Amino acid sequence: MKIRMRWIELTMMAALMLVAGGASAADVAGKWVAEITGPMLLEPVYARVTLERSGDTLAGSWGTNAVKGSIKGTAVTMSFTDAEGRDAGAVTGKIGGDEGEGSGTLAGLGRRGGGSGAYGRPPAPQEVTWKLTRELVPPAKPREVNYDPTTFQAYYYAGNKPGIHIFPGDIVHTWAPDSGGTDKNLKRVALGGDANIGPIYVEGALPGDTLVVHLIKIEPNRKTARQGSRIQQYAVTPAYNLQAKYDQRFNGEWQLDNATGYATLTEAPPALKNFKLKMNPMLGCISVAPQGFEAYGGTHLGPYGGNLDYNGVVSGTTMFFPVFHPGALFGFGDGHAAMGDGEVTQTGLETSMAVDFSVEIIKGYQTQGVREEDKDFIISFGVAGSLEEALKTSTAQLATWIKHDYGLTDSEVALFLGDVMQYNVTELVDPEFDVVSKVPKSALAMLTPVR
Amino acid sequence: MKIRMRWIELTMMAALMLVAGGASAADVAGKWVAEITGPMLLEPVYARVTLERSGDTLAGSWGTNAVKGSIKGTAVTMSFTDAEGRDAGAVTGKIGGDEGEGSGTLAGLGRRGGGSGAYGRPPAPQEVTWKLTRELVPPAKPREVNYDPTTFQAYYYAGNKPGIHIFPGDIVHTWAPDSGGTDKNLKRVALGGDANIGPIYVEGALPGDTLVVHLIKIEPNRKTARQGSRIQQYAVTPAYNLQAKYDQRFNGEWQLDNATGYATLTEAPPALKNFKLKMNPMLGCISVAPQGFEAYGGTHLGPYGGNLDYNGVVSGTTMFFPVFHPGALFGFGDGHAAMGDGEVTQTGLETSMAVDFSVEIIKGYQTQGVREEDKDFIISFGVAGSLEEALKTSTAQLATWIKHDYGLTDSEVALFLGDVMQYNVTELVDPEFDVVSKVPKSALAMLTPVR
Repeated sequence: MKIRMRWIELTMMAALMLVAGGASAADVAGKWVAEITGPMLLEPVYARVTLERSGDTLAGSWGTNAVKGSIKGTAVTMSFTDAEGRDAGAVTGKIGGDEGEGSGTLAGLGRRGGGSGAYGRPPAPQEVTWKLTRELVPPAKPREVNYDPTTFQAYYYAGNKPGIHIFPGDIVHTWAPDSGGTDKNLKRVALGGDANIGPIYVEGALPGDTLVVHLIKIEPNRKTARQGSRIQQYAVTPAYNLQAKYDQRFNGEWQLDNATGYATLTEAPPALKNFKLKMNPMLGCISVAPQGFEAYGGTHLGPYGGNLDYNGVVSGTTMFFPVFHPGALFGFGDGHAAMGDGEVTQTGLETSMAVDFSVEIIKGYQTQGVREEDKDFIISFGVAGSLEEALKTSTAQLATWIKHDYGLTDSEVALFLGDVMQYNVTELVDPEFDVVSKVPKSALAMLTPVR
Repeated sequence: MKIRMRWIELTMMAALMLVAGGASAADVAGKWVAEITGPMLLEPVYARVTLERSGDTLAGSWGTNAVKGSIKGTAVTMSFTDAEGRDAGAVTGKIGGDEGEGSGTLAGLGRRGGGSGAYGRPPAPQEVTWKLTRELVPPAKPREVNYDPTTFQAYYYAGNKPGIHIFPGDIVHTWAPDSGGTDKNLKRVALGGDANIGPIYVEGALPGDTLVVHLIKIEPNRKTARQGSRIQQYAVTPAYNLQAKYDQRFNGEWQLDNATGYATLTEAPPALKNFKLKMNPMLGCISVAPQGFEAYGGTHLGPYGGNLDYNGVVSGTTMFFPVFHPGALFGFGDGHAAMGDGEVTQTGLETSMAVDFSVEIIKGYQTQGVREEDKDFIISFGVAGSLEEALKTSTAQLATWIKHDYGLTDSEVALFLGDVMQYNVTELVDPEFDVVSKVPKSALAMLTPVR
């Protein structure tokens, strides 16, 4: 709880600052976003820029660098100093109205640019060109947004054209097709293979941020779901499946009743005639665009999320994603009315979903991979090519997270996790494995937050 | 609940039959145990034998075979027919008083003997010698047994000499040293490396049975425990541990308070000064002797149990083990006052334990590996060299178990497990990995038991 409060406070602060930063178009002072390109950069990088003007003198910040400069008309010169007081480059150009552009040199760029450089050497300034645009100011009051998606992402990919732009705070009412691409009327609206709606462009999100998604409501918006009836090869021994006599005609269709919250088989065989399943509507896929030019089919998963297939991604939870691209390019799909651990029949109860959500941005802090919070736990997702590696990745993120937020030493966090950490195997049957590690909030409440 | 009730009923029935079977020593009629050896057998095999006498004629059963025979004085001849009506061999010998012995031929022996033989051919009768002893009759009233162990098993091995013999139903009050071999007074009584007490010989248990262990009470019997403070290599990425600066002198000693049920660090660093840990006393090791001549060090685990390190092996639970040897040769040790999932610091809160337990035998039915029942779940252990294989083994046992007990088809059990099965990673840091799969009893209650 404490963590979420702190993060909300941070974002609220940021939102207030955004509003305060709305300056007249004629004034160079204010809040900007810099897009930086250069021959040494595979892809553009971004920085939040704040400029203050006093006569012809400019001061302020450019990412984590301090700015000193001057302006004559629209012509600017700026030089940068990094957080450790080192020369971080210098640029020239023009800033006027709501735009700016120019060129020069800049240090600390690229994926490792925020650290101390490769092999411990300070990163040298490199040739760049830059553009400035005004940071957008969210509406004073969060909006209610009805989004009826017409675009669906067959690939997790930053090149997908956004289906809608939203602001942090907006309450978005939307829906997503099932994993087969069919909607509430069983009409096909997208290819199968776990297409996600959108992408949804979140104004103000920049690479290096964390996208916070509040899943307000996830509820089936039709009366039927389908489930597989074979145990998938990664979930059971080959010997078991060699002997198993699966019925090709077994009817895995379910009737969903939102009023009672239970699902029942459409044609229950005698042995399952009393079997009622408590629904636990979840999103199998939830994603931002992956790093750089990477593109993955809808069934994949990774630090960008995707087909995580965790039965804890339900109403009332909050998800956290690393932002790799401007706007984050959020999306989701693959609703399951219920699912056991591991998705061992290669499906949950596959159905389309009505979804309400809102987002926040944690600026300048990026999670390593996907995280979640529910009422009782903080949760770290680990995705990799084996259960062992998925679990290791998950533990590493959880340990790093707790050290960051509570100031524990390596020995302290080891002991703490050894006492209270829990593991769940979320998904076995997709191209990558998914394990979550989690820690009860009741245990975290006995520590002292440092951030 | 239903499962346990049925199993208890079965064992109660068996116990009543044992009492009824106590016949006068002079009478060949009654219940016997046959030990069968032969040139084609790696190890002795056992059968429960019931003989009825009418004049000079013998009838009854020998394992799953029907017996026809005759007796003159002590000289017997018997011929056998298997459950499918086929010739299953014939023997001659002597039976008198409480003993019998002889030789002949017998079919259906060895590890695959109960089935249809290798590659579907009926197993041919083979040369054997046999001995009969009277089946022991448990005391009419279960006893209270105080067992102060003086023998400890450094290896899981059927050659270990039993430390005590008990009967099903006995309430046994005992204790076990910690994983380092120290007792309630911190005195070393055994080698380190997870020595188990005993072995405990359970009268009446034969290979092919299931040993049922009711863990009545598990409680630390001293005031301190020790825990590691590094994350073990299988629980976190190499990159994390490469950067981690573990404090060699970190004091992982805990104070245990049975009255409050909480543990606190003896020397809590400031960041952990408010950290109280709810105790959940568990047995890290619990075992029967493994198959045949196999011998494993105390840190190992497998279908015989051993160092399972599951934090669900606690007071009030029931464990089920496949019996591989007469007497089962039960044991336990490696108490933890508490432990997170995975035993990620390579230890729990290691301490010695006071333990009360009782056992039952399910005769003629052998679990594939270790199982458990607690208040809410039936639980299947899977042990293997990788998490994937451990999980597959666990699922296969759980699916087979539910098919056996509830008569589900392969498709039905697949669908059911896909809806309600849960996975926990119990242990990562021992020579083998351990995963449990489990199903809520509330879901099983909607099925119809067939056994």
